[in-house]
Amino acid sequence: MNTEVLGYAAHSSQSPLVPFKFERRTPREDDVVIKIEYCGVCHSDLHQVRNDWGFSFYPIVPGHEIVGRIISTGSGAKKYKEGDLVGIGCMVDSCRTCSACHSGLEQYCEQGNIQTYGSLDRYDQQPTYGGYSQIIVCSEDFVLKVPENLDTKAVPPLLCAGITTWSPLRHWNIGKGSKVAVVGLGGLGHMAIKLANALGADVTLFTRSVNKEGDAKKLGAHQVVLSTDEAQMNSVANQFDLIIDTVPYNHDLESYIPTLTLDGTIVLVGYLGEISANSVPLIMGRRSIAGSVIGGIKETQELLDFCGEHNIVADVEMIEMRNINEAFERMLKSDVKYRFVIDIKTLVEN
Amino acid sequence: MNTEVLGYAAHSSQSPLVPFKFERRTPREDDVVIKIEYCGVCHSDLHQVRNDWGFSFYPIVPGHEIVGRIISTGSGAKKYKEGDLVGIGCMVDSCRTCSACHSGLEQYCEQGNIQTYGSLDRYDQQPTYGGYSQIIVCSEDFVLKVPENLDTKAVPPLLCAGITTWSPLRHWNIGKGSKVAVVGLGGLGHMAIKLANALGADVTLFTRSVNKEGDAKKLGAHQVVLSTDEAQMNSVANQFDLIIDTVPYNHDLESYIPTLTLDGTIVLVGYLGEISANSVPLIMGRRSIAGSVIGGIKETQELLDFCGEHNIVADVEMIEMRNINEAFERMLKSDVKYRFVIDIKTLVEN
Ligand SMILES: [Zn+2]
Ligand SMILES: [Zn+2]
Ligand SMILES: [Zn+2]
Ligand SMILES: [Zn+2]
Repeated sequence: MNTEVLGYAAHSSQSPLVPFKFERRTPREDDVVIKIEYCGVCHSDLHQVRNDWGFSFYPIVPGHEIVGRIISTGSGAKKYKEGDLVGIGCMVDSCRTCSACHSGLEQYCEQGNIQTYGSLDRYDQQPTYGGYSQIIVCSEDFVLKVPENLDTKAVPPLLCAGITTWSPLRHWNIGKGSKVAVVGLGGLGHMAIKLANALGADVTLFTRSVNKEGDAKKLGAHQVVLSTDEAQMNSVANQFDLIIDTVPYNHDLESYIPTLTLDGTIVLVGYLGEISANSVPLIMGRRSIAGSVIGGIKETQELLDFCGEHNIVADVEMIEMRNINEAFERMLKSDVKYRFVIDIKTLVEN
Repeated sequence: MNTEVLGYAAHSSQSPLVPFKFERRTPREDDVVIKIEYCGVCHSDLHQVRNDWGFSFYPIVPGHEIVGRIISTGSGAKKYKEGDLVGIGCMVDSCRTCSACHSGLEQYCEQGNIQTYGSLDRYDQQPTYGGYSQIIVCSEDFVLKVPENLDTKAVPPLLCAGITTWSPLRHWNIGKGSKVAVVGLGGLGHMAIKLANALGADVTLFTRSVNKEGDAKKLGAHQVVLSTDEAQMNSVANQFDLIIDTVPYNHDLESYIPTLTLDGTIVLVGYLGEISANSVPLIMGRRSIAGSVIGGIKETQELLDFCGEHNIVADVEMIEMRNINEAFERMLKSDVKYRFVIDIKTLVEN
C-alpha cells in the first residue's frame, strides 16, 4: 500500500517551492521506510529546480542530504531495524552489476546511478522525489548508518558536501604528512578543510577575500593564501599534493597548478563547464587536472563512521521548510555559514 | 686538455645551421668521452634553433638523441670502458640531491635539469652543446648503455621520442589487458604505438586522416579511429586507460576525454601552451588531464634494455649533416617517417 506524503516541490523552473502531496511506493523486499528529520540544502537543489543544467522535469521534490529514522522495513531487509538513525545521500540505486558498482563506485555506474530526486526508478519508472518531504522509501543498500553521538541536525551535509570532498581526499591518499589546499569556502570547502585536517594533513585555504582567514582557521586550516596576491602564490609553489577546487563557476585554474608538487593533482568537484589551463606546468611536473563526483556507498559509510569517531559535523543554519525560497536566494549570494538544513518537522501544509 | 670539436650550430633564430668549431672540456673524474655516430633530429631542436619558446641563446648546437662509442673515460668513471656503445638523451646533469633526483626523476629536478644543449654546465657555467657534433663529454651517470643487437642508427630516437612515451606508459602501469590510445602519428606517436604494443596493451591510433591506417597497423596499432567522425568516437566511449597525446600544437581535447575509462588519464607529451576542455566528463568519470616530460635516467636505461629484448627501434630516415636545414623544413610539413637521424660521419667542414 502506497503512503501519501507531504513534500515541497517546484512545478516549473520559474516557480517557487510549494507544498506538494505525492505517494511513496509500497516497500519492496529490500526497502526501508524512513521518517525524515532533517534535510540539507545543496546548490544542486537550486540548479535542478531552476533547470540550470537543462535536464530537469517537474514536479521536483529536491533534497539529497537526508537524515531520519527507520519506521518500517521490507520483508527481506536485514540491515536496519525500526528506530535506527540513518541517512540517504545523492543516490538511491544503481545497476549493481557493472564494474564500477562492483568496486563500490556506484557514483560512476556505467548505466548512470539513480539520483535521489529527478531520476526514474529502475523498476516502476516513477520519478524519484527527494528529502524535502516527510518520508522516503529506499533500498537498504543505499541507506547509510548515522552515528548516534553526532549532532543529528548537522549531519545531513556530510551526505553530499562531505562525501564530495572525502572521496578525493581518500582516492588521492591524503593523510599525515600530506599537504592539501582547498579553493573556495562554501558548503564543500568548509567540509574539505575539516576532513583534510582530521585526516592529519596540513591544510591551506586559497581565497580571494582576506577576511575569510579567521573562519578558515577556526575550521581547521593551517594557512590562508590570497590567490589574487602573486607573491603569496609564488611562496607556495610546488607545495600541495592535492588541491580540492570547490568553486562552482568558471574560474582561472592556471595560477593554482604551479602550487602542486610533482605528481600533484587539482581535482574539480564543484564546477560543470569549460576549463582552461596551460600545459607547461602540467608537463614540467607530471601534474594532473582531475574531476570527482560524490562518493560510493561504502565510502560514504566510512566517512560517517570517521565523523562519528572524530566528532565532525557541518556548520549549519537551521531553517523552516516554508523559508526555503528565501534560503535559495541567500545561498545564491553565499550568505550562509555553511549549509542550510531544513527541520522537516516544520514541513506543514501551509 | 680541451678537445676541439666540429659541430653544426645556429648563430641566431633566423640563420641556418652551419659548421661550427668549439671545445669540449677536459674530462672530469666522472666523465666519459663519446665519439658520436648518430644523432636524431627532434622537433625541439627546431623550436630551440628558432627560439620559439623565447629562452634560446646562441650559438646553439642542437641534438639530444645521441648514440656513439666511448673513446676515453675520466679517472673516476667506472661504468663504461673504451668501445662501449652508449647514448645520451635530453639531460646531461641535474642537482642529484633533491627528492625528484633521489627518486630517479631527474627530468623533474627541483633545480631544473641541465639540458644536453642550451643549458649552462653546473660547474664551469659553460653552455652545453648537443649531438650535432663529433664528440661529447658527459658524466657517466647521464650516459645510457645501448644494446649491441639493435640497428644502431635507428636507436637515437629512443632517447627522446621513445622515453617521452615510455615514461607515461610505465607511470600509468600499462601492460597486458590495458587499452591505450595515441593521438598523432609522428616521431612520438610512432614510438608510443610500438612501445604500448610491446607492453601487451591493446593500441588505438586517433587520427584525422584516414590514410594513416595502414602505417599505424604496421607499427602495431590494433585499431584506428578517425577523430573527426562522431560515430567512430562514440563507439570508443569509456575505453581507454591511457591516451598519449603527442600533438605538438593547440588542439581540441574535449572529444578524447569521454573515450577514457573511469579513472583514465589523457597525458600531454607534445604541446606547450593553452589547453581547454569541459569539466563534466572529467568529474563524471574521475578522469584526468596530465602532462609528462621525457623520463629519468634509470627509466631510460630500462627502456633501452626493453627495446634490446624486444628488438624495437625507431623508423628512421638517414640524412647527411649538410642536409639538416632541408630536414627541418620537411619536418615542419610532417614529411618524415618518422624521425630523421644524422649520420655523424658525414659531418665535415664544408
Ligand atoms: Zn548536493
Ligand atoms: Zn553500475
Ligand atoms: Zn626531443
Ligand atoms: Zn634535483
